[in-house]
Amino acid sequence: MLQDQQILRIPGPSPIPPSVQRAMSQPMIGHRGQETSAMLQTISSKLKKVLGTSQDVLILTGSGTSGLEAAVVNIVQPNEEVLILISGAFGERFAKICDAYSIKTHQIDVEWGQAINPQDVKKYLKDHPEIKTVFSTYCETSTGILNPIKEISEAVHEASEALFVVDGVSCVGGVETKMDDWGIDVMVTGSQKAFMLPAGLAFIAVSEKAWNKIKTNSRPRFYFDLVKYKDNILKDTTPFTPALSLIFGLEQVLNLMEKEGLDLVYKRHQLMMNMTRAAFKALDIPLLTSDEFASPTVTAVQPNDFNSEDFRKVLKKQFGLTVAGGQQHLSGKIFRIGHMGYCSPADVLQTISAIEIGLNLVGRKTELGKGTAAAQKIYLEQGVIV
Amino acid sequence: MLQDQQILRIPGPSPIPPSVQRAMSQPMIGHRGQETSAMLQTISSKLKKVLGTSQDVLILTGSGTSGLEAAVVNIVQPNEEVLILISGAFGERFAKICDAYSIKTHQIDVEWGQAINPQDVKKYLKDHPEIKTVFSTYCETSTGILNPIKEISEAVHEASEALFVVDGVSCVGGVETKMDDWGIDVMVTGSQKAFMLPAGLAFIAVSEKAWNKIKTNSRPRFYFDLVKYKDNILKDTTPFTPALSLIFGLEQVLNLMEKEGLDLVYKRHQLMMNMTRAAFKALDIPLLTSDEFASPTVTAVQPNDFNSEDFRKVLKKQFGLTVAGGQQHLSGKIFRIGHMGYCSPADVLQTISAIEIGLNLVGRKTELGKGTAAAQKIYLEQGVIV
Repeated sequence: MLQDQQILRIPGPSPIPPSVQRAMSQPMIGHRGQETSAMLQTISSKLKKVLGTSQDVLILTGSGTSGLEAAVVNIVQPNEEVLILISGAFGERFAKICDAYSIKTHQIDVEWGQAINPQDVKKYLKDHPEIKTVFSTYCETSTGILNPIKEISEAVHEASEALFVVDGVSCVGGVETKMDDWGIDVMVTGSQKAFMLPAGLAFIAVSEKAWNKIKTNSRPRFYFDLVKYKDNILKDTTPFTPALSLIFGLEQVLNLMEKEGLDLVYKRHQLMMNMTRAAFKALDIPLLTSDEFASPTVTAVQPNDFNSEDFRKVLKKQFGLTVAGGQQHLSGKIFRIGHMGYCSPADVLQTISAIEIGLNLVGRKTELGKGTAAAQKIYLEQGVIV
Repeated sequence: MLQDQQILRIPGPSPIPPSVQRAMSQPMIGHRGQETSAMLQTISSKLKKVLGTSQDVLILTGSGTSGLEAAVVNIVQPNEEVLILISGAFGERFAKICDAYSIKTHQIDVEWGQAINPQDVKKYLKDHPEIKTVFSTYCETSTGILNPIKEISEAVHEASEALFVVDGVSCVGGVETKMDDWGIDVMVTGSQKAFMLPAGLAFIAVSEKAWNKIKTNSRPRFYFDLVKYKDNILKDTTPFTPALSLIFGLEQVLNLMEKEGLDLVYKRHQLMMNMTRAAFKALDIPLLTSDEFASPTVTAVQPNDFNSEDFRKVLKKQFGLTVAGGQQHLSGKIFRIGHMGYCSPADVLQTISAIEIGLNLVGRKTELGKGTAAAQKIYLEQGVIV
């Protein structure tokens, strides 16, 4: 097999654009100097657009999970109760973080592959006025669901005074996000998915209402204390040494997003989702999620007539193509295709056409070209650049 | 459109593997030091295998053309006559170089898209015993022909005492090459095609018989004097400052070729050719060359019902996909797809599936997925890694 080729189609970490790779290999500079401050200033205004907020976007050096934990420890006061909306493994992560701090959690669980229903949230909050914060995932990476986050936010605010915290790690940058307009109080995301960077940065923005609570929150915290980040960003710096190579890369990522146009970035992700889904429908292979709540960044496929782990091995062996497996109880039962960040419609065509070969190799008789044709048709209908 | 993505499918320069890109960005070292000598020594033995020779492979810093000119000025003594076998633009290049030195040339020209016939060469040489050197291209990049170089070499040696010089720039490293066994006296190739490097290095190997002539050749030359390169390579060095970053890259390229296995490298190129040709046949779009003499590294397509320049623009605009146009009188009449070096069967599938969309966009009604299916079928028949 051709050496050195990795076709990485997992739902993050995602491939890095060459110009971002080059940016990240710039020589180190002083993290307290003028150049770093100027860079943070440029980044700041562009990041706000991606998160859809006029608030400062705080940059933590850490994985996405560090951002989730920072949200919990800053927002939840001692002895408060919270509601966690769980549609998969990353909803559960919020619950695990709260457990670690012995925070009393309420949970709304839906079957994996289903989306959270805003009406259920509304009803639950009306019945439980003691809940002070609601946590939700936007895109649930483990299932490929895009929760109706705007509607959930409306439901939360209609039913209660609770703050609404959103994990947008696996979609922000690839799908439209209007934190302010939608009334989201804390938006958390990370660098390694639609942001086209390696893991290592978490981005957090906080509403006025949430800041008021954070400032008076007595819960112990140091590295994750968002007040420190806020105080520092006002001086174009960071409280702790930032992962500068990732910051170099972030600056270039935001340039690329601006050059393409954020609207077109979102349109491209929508298109890639539609191409991918059309292909599997044409091949008569079930998708885990409905069209209504499918994420533009990741598609979960639930085969009923071949073994998905054998299939994943075949793709890796034949083409160096990596797709993800399922997590927890869906392990071995689904596979997931990432189509986010540095991924194009042509990359989707490549993935689908390789997959058609892989299906035949695991003994799942599949008409060659059929899924590809369905994806091509979607491109001709929705994707053509005029 | 996704920024920063270049899908480069021209017949060279070809894409650079990431590990080669990284190797090339190593810090500069002294070109007369121990490290450089050790590197040149490692490279030397591996390069011999790729060219199929026990002779030293000389490394010139220069484009492929510098290698062709070096062959001419070292091999052709003043007042000698030569025969040039011309099957396209790069055969003509040999003629232009000879013209620059006022060397008297004989020529056998075939229609572009045809291969040189060894019997014609034999007959011509028998009729013209004054010819002392024969020049031929192996793969003719401008048409996608792979000349039957072994048979031509046999014809040359059966008919005369002439030396046989071969331009292997656009195929060596991607197709089997047995310089010694086939009786080739001078083999020239370059770095930017199947060698997966940027342009900037030319490789030349010389038979014993040719060395005897070169050593006594009085033609003036300095930078291109192969005797200097030979004398230096025996001391693991070069006569002039080498392009060290390309040498770093070359070392890694040869590692990759060794890791894949040269036989499998050649098999992969054959497979990519077969997939590409099968696709266009399925789509009923004429190929310029016959199956018999098609090159595993580049395929020329000669459409008769759409404009190939419009088509190339569409591919570039929609997918950032670059295929090459025609040269000279074939300009605007053909397009050429490179499938060499850092290119995989999955890349061929991507190219074909994007092309099917492009065809429909230039108004050439094409059944979606049909060409892709034909290429997939070839993969299943010939390409599966067991």
